[in-house]
Amino acid sequence: MSAQGGISVFFIDFLHMISLYRPWPGSLCFYSDVFYGTIAFQKILATTATNKMTLKPEILSVTSVARSRLFHIEQVDLRFNNGTEVQFERLQSDSAGSVLIVPVEGDELVLIREYAVGTERYELSFPKGNIDTGEEPHVAACRELQEEIGMASSNIRLLRRVIVSPAYVNRPIWILLATDLSVDPLPGDEPEELEQLRWPVNRMWELLEREDFCDGVNQLALYALGHVMKVLPY
Amino acid sequence: MSAQGGISVFFIDFLHMISLYRPWPGSLCFYSDVFYGTIAFQKILATTATNKMTLKPEILSVTSVARSRLFHIEQVDLRFNNGTEVQFERLQSDSAGSVLIVPVEGDELVLIREYAVGTERYELSFPKGNIDTGEEPHVAACRELQEEIGMASSNIRLLRRVIVSPAYVNRPIWILLATDLSVDPLPGDEPEELEQLRWPVNRMWELLEREDFCDGVNQLALYALGHVMKVLPY
Repeated sequence: MSAQGGISVFFIDFLHMISLYRPWPGSLCFYSDVFYGTIAFQKILATTATNKMTLKPEILSVTSVARSRLFHIEQVDLRFNNGTEVQFERLQSDSAGSVLIVPVEGDELVLIREYAVGTERYELSFPKGNIDTGEEPHVAACRELQEEIGMASSNIRLLRRVIVSPAYVNRPIWILLATDLSVDPLPGDEPEELEQLRWPVNRMWELLEREDFCDGVNQLALYALGHVMKVLPY
Repeated sequence: MSAQGGISVFFIDFLHMISLYRPWPGSLCFYSDVFYGTIAFQKILATTATNKMTLKPEILSVTSVARSRLFHIEQVDLRFNNGTEVQFERLQSDSAGSVLIVPVEGDELVLIREYAVGTERYELSFPKGNIDTGEEPHVAACRELQEEIGMASSNIRLLRRVIVSPAYVNRPIWILLATDLSVDPLPGDEPEELEQLRWPVNRMWELLEREDFCDGVNQLALYALGHVMKVLPY
């Protein structure tokens, strides 16, 4: 079988599998409880392992200690059940969270290269952005796709909902898969035009070897895609 | 083949595979460039995809705008190559980064349940913690294991080094695999005793279904383990 043929067959199975795996309304304009149903899927399963319920510590007070344009730091005074009192800090945010979208067009992933001031270099990433107030995650996802890669998607599905560093933040990241893409750009607020990069799906694991694909959430998104595609990273 | 037998065979292959995959000094006291060699492995590979070099924006100034006990927020004034000037914010840290350790003892993973003030609930996690000033990541990893699960490891290997949210931070997380565990506790600084949870390796993917295993970095660590073990998440 040629590589091309292999990918096509593999994609039919892939899309079929995703449909079975975590359903999503076919149209972006169609809102449904199915969306939240997929989240409920991430329920606590009964296990044979220990899972003792621990009484939560009591929150004595929450104080705002520092604020900037983007960040808001809170100090939380807590009393644990053994009587120990501690002060923790956490980051609050006005945003309802963010989306990271894996766009697949044909046999290719669509990525962007964007300057990151944390690492002070250009990083490779799937399109991403904040969820605006009152916006549904899949609507935010389509808007970000239009702004960052100039394409809309009529088929956005949930791959995973995660919180990174729950010890410090409570800001969910919705990792989504977008297919059925069509050219439909929206103006973004980026300071420069984003460079787009197409990457063959059958070489997706090579992304993990790239120094500029260092972001753990992007790597997780790749594994989550591989998970629903049932393809091994080796 | 019995389930038990299956796991044993699978572990021999697993450990063999890991040895081939990313070498690590056998003893914790033995320092070696091999450690850094594994990082160099994450180099940029030549690819057929577009990889245009973009000239970085010029940093005009960096200003400290807010500081708390844990966090330090900087404002960075930038000029992009197209002349656009913008202000970004980022989080700085005194720490050299952190470690997240996947401890494997026999056929079980060792996890902890710890209160997270971000989500205000107990979360399931692999042992983790900050790297102290001047400390090597594998030394920090062994110390955290001793503090959090009361065990030392004589075989710690690198699974992955990531930066989460490079747009805002430049703080690496070293994801490590620890085997050859022995009882050797150190006092920790946790406000209460950490609950330990043993989880069968052959049911590792069920962790992804747990609401209290929501942390993206822990999920990535699980996939990175599956990657070197060559086991499918389905």
